[in-house]
Amino acid sequence: MLKDNTVFVGNKPVMNYVLAVVTQFNNGADEVAIKARGKAISRAVDTAEIAINRFLEGVAKKEILTGTEMIDTDTGKTNVSSIEIVLSQQLR
Amino acid sequence: MLKDNTVFVGNKPVMNYVLAVVTQFNNGADEVAIKARGKAISRAVDTAEIAINRFLEGVAKKEILTGTEMIDTDTGKTNVSSIEIVLSQQLR
Repeated sequence: MLKDNTVFVGNKPVMNYVLAVVTQFNNGADEVAIKARGKAISRAVDTAEIAINRFLEGVAKKEILTGTEMIDTDTGKTNVSSIEIVLSQQLR
Repeated sequence: MLKDNTVFVGNKPVMNYVLAVVTQFNNGADEVAIKARGKAISRAVDTAEIAINRFLEGVAKKEILTGTEMIDTDTGKTNVSSIEIVLSQQLR
């Protein structure tokens, strides 16, 4: 998957990320990956659910992956959970 | 799956839920479902990752599902995202 087709979810309002996902599909993407770490994981799930239920026709969740990443902080390395939700355009 | 094999993740410290999951496997469960809604979704992912990476030998993520549930609040009905992570004992 092209890097362009990834939306990283952070601390902004969820509709910002929904708009980013919808825009990528409207620009012709077949798949969009929604990624987040830590507390933003809930918002990534919200993003996927809102995009599919309210804005995107014929797009479904293809794959959901979770993992653990090690990140550097001021006080040393720490583990943080991550999620990747891949949305895919179904056959038209 | 038996209802007993489900751990509902809420606002308590994550290790409470990790302990609940590990206990169920130690009591002979083949599968344990970790469920959460809203902001607790991130903690559900943490629970699964910590349980698998630090405590459970031979247990893997079998399935991850997300969805949208309608709940009643003081101000009316609202949608909330949900997650279900199913952990499964691999063949021993």
